[in-house]
This record gives sequence, C-alpha cells and structure tokens, in this order.
Amino acid sequence: MIIVMGPGHSVDQRDAAIKRIEELGYRVSPIIGVERTVLAAVGHEDKTPLQQLESMAGVEAVIPILKPFKLASSEYRDTRTAIDVKGAMIGDQHLTIMGGPCAVESEAQIMECGRVCRDLGVPFLRGGAFKPRTSPYSFQGLEVEGLKLLRQAADEYNLRVVTEIVSVNDVEPIQEYSDVMQIGARNSQNFALLKEAGRSRIPVLLKRGMAQTVQEFLMSAEYILSEGNENVILCERGIRTFETATRFTLDLNAVPVIKSQCHLPVLVDPSHGTGSWQYVTAMARAGIAAGADGVVVEFHPHPDKAVSDGPQSLKPAKFAQLVDEVTRLAQCMGRIVE
Amino acid sequence: MIIVMGPGHSVDQRDAAIKRIEELGYRVSPIIGVERTVLAAVGHEDKTPLQQLESMAGVEAVIPILKPFKLASSEYRDTRTAIDVKGAMIGDQHLTIMGGPCAVESEAQIMECGRVCRDLGVPFLRGGAFKPRTSPYSFQGLEVEGLKLLRQAADEYNLRVVTEIVSVNDVEPIQEYSDVMQIGARNSQNFALLKEAGRSRIPVLLKRGMAQTVQEFLMSAEYILSEGNENVILCERGIRTFETATRFTLDLNAVPVIKSQCHLPVLVDPSHGTGSWQYVTAMARAGIAAGADGVVVEFHPHPDKAVSDGPQSLKPAKFAQLVDEVTRLAQCMGRIVE
Amino acid sequence: MIIVMGPGHSVDQRDAAIKRIEELGYRVSPIIGVERTVLAAVGHEDKTPLQQLESMAGVEAVIPILKPFKLASSEYRDTRTAIDVKGAMIGDQHLTIMGGPCAVESEAQIMECGRVCRDLGVPFLRGGAFKPRTSPYSFQGLEVEGLKLLRQAADEYNLRVVTEIVSVNDVEPIQEYSDVMQIGARNSQNFALLKEAGRSRIPVLLKRGMAQTVQEFLMSAEYILSEGNENVILCERGIRTFETATRFTLDLNAVPVIKSQCHLPVLVDPSHGTGSWQYVTAMARAGIAAGADGVVVEFHPHPDKAVSDGPQSLKPAKFAQLVDEVTRLAQCMGRIVE
Amino acid sequence: MIIVMGPGHSVDQRDAAIKRIEELGYRVSPIIGVERTVLAAVGHEDKTPLQQLESMAGVEAVIPILKPFKLASSEYRDTRTAIDVKGAMIGDQHLTIMGGPCAVESEAQIMECGRVCRDLGVPFLRGGAFKPRTSPYSFQGLEVEGLKLLRQAADEYNLRVVTEIVSVNDVEPIQEYSDVMQIGARNSQNFALLKEAGRSRIPVLLKRGMAQTVQEFLMSAEYILSEGNENVILCERGIRTFETATRFTLDLNAVPVIKSQCHLPVLVDPSHGTGSWQYVTAMARAGIAAGADGVVVEFHPHPDKAVSDGPQSLKPAKFAQLVDEVTRLAQCMGRIVE
Repeated sequence: MIIVMGPGHSVDQRDAAIKRIEELGYRVSPIIGVERTVLAAVGHEDKTPLQQLESMAGVEAVIPILKPFKLASSEYRDTRTAIDVKGAMIGDQHLTIMGGPCAVESEAQIMECGRVCRDLGVPFLRGGAFKPRTSPYSFQGLEVEGLKLLRQAADEYNLRVVTEIVSVNDVEPIQEYSDVMQIGARNSQNFALLKEAGRSRIPVLLKRGMAQTVQEFLMSAEYILSEGNENVILCERGIRTFETATRFTLDLNAVPVIKSQCHLPVLVDPSHGTGSWQYVTAMARAGIAAGADGVVVEFHPHPDKAVSDGPQSLKPAKFAQLVDEVTRLAQCMGRIVE
Repeated sequence: MIIVMGPGHSVDQRDAAIKRIEELGYRVSPIIGVERTVLAAVGHEDKTPLQQLESMAGVEAVIPILKPFKLASSEYRDTRTAIDVKGAMIGDQHLTIMGGPCAVESEAQIMECGRVCRDLGVPFLRGGAFKPRTSPYSFQGLEVEGLKLLRQAADEYNLRVVTEIVSVNDVEPIQEYSDVMQIGARNSQNFALLKEAGRSRIPVLLKRGMAQTVQEFLMSAEYILSEGNENVILCERGIRTFETATRFTLDLNAVPVIKSQCHLPVLVDPSHGTGSWQYVTAMARAGIAAGADGVVVEFHPHPDKAVSDGPQSLKPAKFAQLVDEVTRLAQCMGRIVE
Repeated sequence: MIIVMGPGHSVDQRDAAIKRIEELGYRVSPIIGVERTVLAAVGHEDKTPLQQLESMAGVEAVIPILKPFKLASSEYRDTRTAIDVKGAMIGDQHLTIMGGPCAVESEAQIMECGRVCRDLGVPFLRGGAFKPRTSPYSFQGLEVEGLKLLRQAADEYNLRVVTEIVSVNDVEPIQEYSDVMQIGARNSQNFALLKEAGRSRIPVLLKRGMAQTVQEFLMSAEYILSEGNENVILCERGIRTFETATRFTLDLNAVPVIKSQCHLPVLVDPSHGTGSWQYVTAMARAGIAAGADGVVVEFHPHPDKAVSDGPQSLKPAKFAQLVDEVTRLAQCMGRIVE
Repeated sequence: MIIVMGPGHSVDQRDAAIKRIEELGYRVSPIIGVERTVLAAVGHEDKTPLQQLESMAGVEAVIPILKPFKLASSEYRDTRTAIDVKGAMIGDQHLTIMGGPCAVESEAQIMECGRVCRDLGVPFLRGGAFKPRTSPYSFQGLEVEGLKLLRQAADEYNLRVVTEIVSVNDVEPIQEYSDVMQIGARNSQNFALLKEAGRSRIPVLLKRGMAQTVQEFLMSAEYILSEGNENVILCERGIRTFETATRFTLDLNAVPVIKSQCHLPVLVDPSHGTGSWQYVTAMARAGIAAGADGVVVEFHPHPDKAVSDGPQSLKPAKFAQLVDEVTRLAQCMGRIVE
C-alpha cells in the first residue's frame, strides 16, 4: 500500500500521516521528493485499515499495489504516460526517433549530425559527452565542452539534446545544457545516481542493465519516480546472452512485458542491442512492431572514422532510410510520428 | 571448397573426382545424398588447384565457401529460397502463417482447429502427435493415431500438416501422414535425426536449439541439406537467458543475422518464444517486421483445458486478430501473404 | 504419489492396482520397466486415499513425492546410490576418475591411452566411437570399429569402457563392446534415446544439457530410471553463458544442488566445461571439493595432432599430475579413491 | 606499450616524456595517479621506437603489453601480488577468510558477529552500512552510524573492516572507518566510482559484475590501478545465467582464468554466488580448490531475523564448520591460512 501526499502538503500533515500508519501497526518508508512525498506502508497482509488515511489532510491517494514497483505500475496509473520534452511528446500514441553519434567528437561532427536530424524531421539529438568506457585508456568524452557543442547543434537546428550522465557530480551541467538525461546500462543499478536523477528537473532516459530482469529494471525506474521525478522513459538496449553473432541480444520481448505492467514510455536501441549497423534497421522496425514508443539510433557522418562504436553506427543515408521505414510502419500501426 | 556432383552422376565419376582431389593433396568428406553428392575438400589454404575439377564429368559446380556451413550459405546460393508445400510457398517474398494446438488431443479438438485455420485462410495446421515432454509422467502424445487425426483435419479443410518427429524410427509414419516434418529445439543437435530427416522426402521445419548460436543452428541445417534434402525451413523459437518474465527469450536478432548469411526461409514461433499468450501477437508482429518469412502460432479452442502449453495458446478469436494484424503488417512491408 | 510394483509382481496385480487408483479418482501413468513397474498417480491434491494401496498384493511401496522427478529424488531413496561397474564403484563414498581421448582415432592411439590409465590406476577408459559433431564435414568417429578398439584396449589393461551413444539404433553394439553408455549434452533431451537407454542393461552416464536447468536434468534422468534402468550416473559438463574466456561455464553449483535433492552419483567434466587444458586440473580439484563423486577428463598422447578437442586435452604427464592432485584432495576429504 | 613514470618524477619530466612519445608518432593517454603516472602509448603496430624512453629522466619502465588491461596483467608483474591490510596478508600463498552479516543492523548484532570472527580466528569483518538495494522501499542501511558500529566491533575484537561504497561522495567516511572499501557487482562498471576508489588510500575489494566477462572485470580493476591505487582484490560473486536453482551462478572457472592472466588476489563469495546457505560451504571449499585466495561469507546470529539476505546467511555454528573445512583444505593445498 502506498500513501501519496499531494503537492503543497505540509510537514505536519506528513508527520501526522506517518504517525497514524505506525499506530495502525505498519512500518513506513517515506520517500520525500521535491514535488510529492510517498509513504510506503509495509507490514500485515491486511491493508484495509490504511484506507482511512484517505480522509486525512494532505493525503492525495491511498493505493493498494501488489507489484514490488509501485509508482511505475499500471496499477498506480492505468493510462499510458506521455512526456512532453519542449513540445515533442514521448509515449502514449506518439512515436519518437532519437539519433546521433555515440560520442561528441568535434564541432563539425556534431553540427553535421544536427543538420541530418533536422533534415529528416528527427526531433532528438543524442550524443555522449561523458563516456562510460570499458577501458580507462579509451576516449572518455569531451565532457562539459561536449555538452556545449551538443547544445549549440540543438539550438541551431531546433532539436532536443539527450546525453548520458555517469556521475552524481555532473547533474548540474547536464541539466544546464541538455533536455533529457540518459542513465546507461552500466549504471542501471547505480542507486546513488538513480536517486540524484530522481531529484533533477529534466526527464530521464533509463536504459536497461545488460543483466537486469524486467522487474529489476522497473525497480530502478521506481528509484527515480520515488524521488519525485515523474518523467522517466525506459529503453531496452540488449541483454547479455550466449549468442555472439550480435554484440548483445536486443530483447524485444521486454516491450510487451513492460507495457502490460507499467505506464511509462518504452524505447528500443537497436544500435547497442545488435552492435552491427547491418541489423539496426530490421530491429528498429521490429521494435516498433512490438509496440515500442520509439527508437534510439546511432549514426555518424563517417562511421569508419568514429572514435567509438563505429561498427554499429549507420551512415546518414542509411539512417534516412531507417527513419523512412520506421515512419511508414508506425503509420501502418496508427501511431503519431513526432 | 565444395565440389557438387550433379543429378545423375555415376559412382565412377564420383570416385574419379575423389581421387583427383586427394591427388591434389586435400582430404575429402563425401556426403552422399539421394539427389546429389557433395564432396567437401579440406586441406591447404590455397584452393585454386581444385577449380580444375569443374571440367570433370559429373561435376556440377566447384564452390569456394568460407563459412563453416556450405549448402546453407548465401555464398552457395545468392537468391532467397522458396519452398513449395503442395502449392503453398514458404520463403522469398511469401509470408506464411502456421497455426494449431500444441498437441493433438482428440478428433473434435483437431477438427475444430482445422476449421479455424480454413476460415482464416491459414494454410498450415500444426499439432504434435509425438510430444517431447520434460517429464516422463506427462502426456506423450497420441502418436500414430494423432497423425491420422491431423491428416483427416487437413484433408477436410484443405490444409497442410506440420508435425514433430522425435525418433529416427518414426520417419515413415510422419512422411505418410504429414507434409512438413518438424525437428524441435530439444533435438536440434540430435545429429542422427537430422541425417534421417535429410534422407526423407518432405520439407523439414528445423527449430533453433535453446542454447544454440545462429552459426550452430545453420550447421544443423547443413546436416539435413548435405544428405540431399534441400527443403529446410528455419524457425527461431526462443533461447535460454536469465530473464524469467518470459519462458524463453524470442531472439529476433537471429532473423536479420540469418538472412544476411543464409538463403533458407526463416519463421518465428512467438508462442514458445514467450510462453505467454498475452505477448504472442506483439512478438508475431515484431518477427514479421524483423524480416521473418512467417510465424508458427499455437491456438486452442479451450486453452484452459489444453493438455499442454495452455498458458501460451491463443483462443481462436485472438488468433484471428493475430492473423489480421500480421497480414496488414506484411502487406505494408510488401510481402505476399499465403 | 508413486506406487512401486515390486520384482515378481504379476500383470493381474498391476492391473488391480491401476483399477483401484482410478476408482479413487486419480489418473495413472504406468511406467513398465524390465525390473520394476512404477504407477504415477496424479489428480487431487489430497493423496491420502492412495495409502491404502500399500496393502495390495504386488505393491512394494507407496511414496509421496513432491518433486517433479520421483525415482531420482532423495525422497524416494535417502541414502546415496553406489553403482558397481565390473567391480569399480561409482558414488557414495567412492571417488572415480575416467580418462581418455575425445575420439578413438587409431589402434595405436587408444592402446597408448589404455596404458596410461592402467599405469595411473585410472579404472575407466573413455573415448568416442560415434561422435556428435557440430559440422557434418567433421570427423564422425570410427563407429563400430572404434568400439572394438576401445574394448581391445580395455581388455588389455583391465579397464572399463565408457563411450557415447548418439542413435537409438546403436544400443546393441554399444552394449556389446562397452561398460557404460554415455548420453551427451546434445542428446540430453532426446527422449527417445533416454527411453532406449532406460531399457538397456548397462549403466548410463548422462551429461547435463548446455541449457538445461538442474531440475530438467533430473527429469531426463527420470526418463531412464522410469524405464527400469536404475544405474544412472549424472555428469555436469558446462552450461552456456555469456562468458567467452571458457568454452562453456562449468557449473559446480549444480553439484551441491543435485546432492541435496537426488541420490544418484554426480561426476564433473572439466575438459568440456572449460574447453582449455590449462584450466582442467584446477576445475577438477574444485569439482571434487564441491562434493562430486569423480571426474571425466580428456587426455591425448599428442593433443596437437588430435582430430577433435585438442585444445582441451591434457598431455599424459599433465593427466598424471591431475590424478595425483585429485587423489590427494579426495583423501583429504575422506573419500575412497577407486 | 605503457611508460611508467616512477615515484618522485617531476611534471617537467612527465611532459618531456609525453612530448617525445608524440614526436615518435603515437597518441598518449596519461593516467596521473597520486603515487605514479602511467603513459599509455597507442598508435603504430611497431612499438620498438618507444624503448628509447627508458633512458629518460623520471621514467621507471617501458613495458610492452598485448592485453587490453595493462597494470593488472601478468605481463606487467609476473609474481603474485600480496596485499597487507594492517598485518593480515591477502594473496600469494596466503588464504583469507572474511565473514559477517549482509548489513549492519544494530550494535548488538555487529558486536556479536565481531566476537564470532575473533573466536574463529577470522581476521576480516564484513558488513554493509550503505546498501545497494533493488527496491527503494527496502532497508538502505544505517549509513555513517553503521560504519561507526563496524569500527567499534573491529576495534573491540582486533579485526579489519570491509564495507561497501555506493557513492563517490562517501569516500571520506568509508576511508575513515574501514580498512577495505568494497565495490559491489552493481557498481562494477560505475567508472566514476572506480576512479574515485583509485584515488583513495585504502585497498579495494572489487566484485565482478553479474554480466561482466572476466576481461571486462580486469578492465574495471585497471581503472582503479591506473589512478594509482595498487591494492586491488578481485572477487567472483556469481554471474547471471538461465539456472534458477541458485540465485546466481558462482563462476569458479573465473579463478584459474584470472590467475593465468593477472597478478592480483582473487576471492570468491559463495553466499551471493549461490543465494542459499545450504550450498555455501561446498562452494567455499570448491573455490579454494580452484585456487582462490580466500572466501567472503555471510553469516548472521539469527538468519531468520536478518533484514536482508537471510536465506544465504549461515548460522555461527555453520560458519565455524566452514572455517574449519576451508582451513583443512587450504592446508592440504599448501596455503598459509591467515
């Protein structure tokens, strides 16, 4: 059972609710967010006595939830959530394409990518400024300089910036220069970072960990939601299996599974999911057909010269073809392409 | 390098070819099929001397192939294979739907399933007569009686029968009563059975093993092909991963991977792949969008009373909806729906 | 609940028991073995009425078993089973080493291997005559000729032969020339073969499938047991995971898991489990320390010239060291080394 | 090729070395640590020109390394590293046992655990003060209060404290109150945290990620080493596979694989690796037999009342038995038990 304290509730009201829950014999886990506070009450099997809290001042709702994730659950919200990012909608009936290079490498490169997105009507420019690299000897990203270049390209071509955060200490610059904060697969259970993202003011694109079950993935989303940030976009990007023909195994089964249990938007990333440019378009189509709310795709003006992830990056012409195929498929399925 | 001895070649011609290959310093693995004999020559890196065999009597072709699978390879045949099953085509630009129950349970049940297929225009009726069950105490199938019931339903409603073989000793009845012989995931590396299927006269639907890499899967197909049966249909049906939200993980990445390397048709089985009826339609759509040549789907007149696989079986009305959605999607992608 | 009909029961007694079970409202799956017949009764939750069958003529025992595997279960037999193979014991407090090449290649090779085993006191000579190979173009074994060579080597050096069966049609020669029939990982759910092995007269070494859960593995053993062959030896040989540093992932966790649920002996195969000779000895030690009843190890007089599995085969001197280390460890743990 | 700038080198010397490397046509990745600076030179295949740097002032060594991990590699150091933690040695010929509860819950609980360790001669007390929990509604640890209780117990019973860090912002208190800083599986590719740990002054116990290959695991260690902290202890704790009989699959194959490539100590954690107390002792023994340098084991005075990980925690009496069995096995293998 969760008790939601509404916007504008006072500390006294919250403390009164906590006191009442404890008097009724339950333990309380309060999650105090910027916008909203949630009191998770655990204890007896019989949760009916908690219903009485609905009449208390400051309490917005008392919600019985059986799933371990609460705010992410379809039981908590039974309509599909759409998230507004500067006028571009993600989720519900909308279909979203995000594109760009693995890493921001130079002004020329990112401006070129921005121009491609603008020309194709792709509203989101993705690119890494802080890079989580397996090797400490690999290129670690242009950092704040990269963020500024992303912003410059986005402003020039009227795009929204999606970029990855890798440290709790980088929230400020990420918020300043970008529109969506990505948490990557390797940080999908970095709970300190999830909590920080939950306290931030911009939407979070949360990628599934490569060994994370769908349920654990939704629990990671719950960390962000429970801190008060309601704008979470999920992204399937491939799991680790025995198969070596692809770099990871893009698990499209996760799409209908998530949609049956959770109201948040779900994107798929066929670039990281397959690790090979030649399979990206087919799997982007498949993701949309499975019901995903969009795709995140890596392209690069010159994949053979890319500092990272060249083999999985499309050339601009192939990316244009992907945008075309995905758009037609989405229309065939009755989606609104952003 | 493989040397293909054409139809009608004599034993003397074959022996002469083998002798020449050995004289040139290579080892020979002859695969003597009913229709055709293939001589795989292995040895030195330099294979150019073998080209001279093209001029020998009885030799159809000398083909350099780098992949470990030869006859299944796109290098061996660079157009997509289509297989004719009593007038219904599988592969190339055709889109095929197969449907039916997990197991044949009774005359009433299978006749009802046949009627549903006929009404929906589904040309293939699937159903198990010999069942590979994890437990020896589970229902093992109606065996030959089940085959006869399948044939009866197919004849009544003008359908083709697809059914599984589980023992090398059952080839005769399977050939007599069915049109496509299925080899299931658990027998995907039962090489004795693969060889027998390669010597049979009907097309083989080969399912991927649950721990088989795509390359190993194509090697299993090669066993059938190398015995002379050219009519092999591949089927992705889910692999084993850590994820428990689905029974298996339907690996749609395998579809574009196979299509890039192999000329054989590829179907997907979203019923076994997910193990849950509620995800079947979404993953059937996704399979088609990924480029698969069709789907194999379990339905049952009364899933709650099914002897096996009830949870993953669609009701007829849901199956009708799947057929409708898959057909529309296939048309949107320019496929001919059989 | 299972009802065991004892040795010497009559068909009338069996039919009477089946009739009674059905009268009580349960369904019966009779497994009619050579030695013993088992009646599995399934139906209501309440199984107490079945207890009355204990007083019927011919009934040996009525055993309530919750696990899906019955005869393999520790509930069925609460002491550890030891299997006598021509005087060499496997299981219980005994520690068994089996060694030999992947495949029988020639008389000289297998006689040399036999001599090595004899010199080291290793009582079991393993070697493949029928080889399950991923590629149809790879060496498929010397077949019956290989079996005869194995027998010759074993007779010369007073050893027992362990060899793999790959087809239901090869039971007779395997029984004639060998002492233990191995069913390999790729046939671990070839139920037709498991049933045939259950009807054979020699012990079966059953390897775990590379994607088989422990529970499914024990269900495969149950197929053999339920056909009347009580002499089943289990063998962990590595599962498929994402890790590529080893060919498979030898899953030693399976050893204590099996020992907590099942009375049959368990061996480990570190050669196939790791795929690399340099890790074999460490993992053989680890298997023994985990509680395994022995190890199956590949060695070859000249690994660099081996037709198959050379990289995972030990040289005789390294094999001698393994035997020495395993023996010392087993003694430290209070085991009797055969 | 890596160029190691020795202790006491000047900034001018470093800059000169960098300049020379670039003049020779290579790119430089300098990793500037507290103790030591490493210059990784990448570029041409031919690295011989770099040998001349050995004669430059401040350069300690020029080392050719083929593996992607450098400082962790056996090529960099060909003897086994032993790490001194307040007089208790980890690695080389030493065998180390660490024990304690999953989480610090109360003064009484952790003092009791400390007493058990002291009585059994176990030199390291482990326990979590900052807990990485899948659910935001689960107990998140006593935080700094927990650290103080750990220190109190360790000081009372002359033990060393091992505890987990989950945020880059907690380095200071962790360093103040503990002796070994643990980085858990979920943060194994949290590169920001790895770098911070590399700048800290205490040894780091790095756990393998649940989907991390051994090579990636060693790359994570390289992040710590390359920042100047040489005291890294590796720990295998189970990977994600399809098997559900155990919570994770403790991958003991990783032990000999790591030992063949890397000089750092390797421990195993059979508690998290199996998730079930009944398999912990067998797998602890197996880990030692595989060559591990020690074990990390969870025990709890009252597992049934544990706030977290109760099912995998041993009772003190069972832990005593484990210590006894592991000690005997280690002695049998010629190890010095700390």
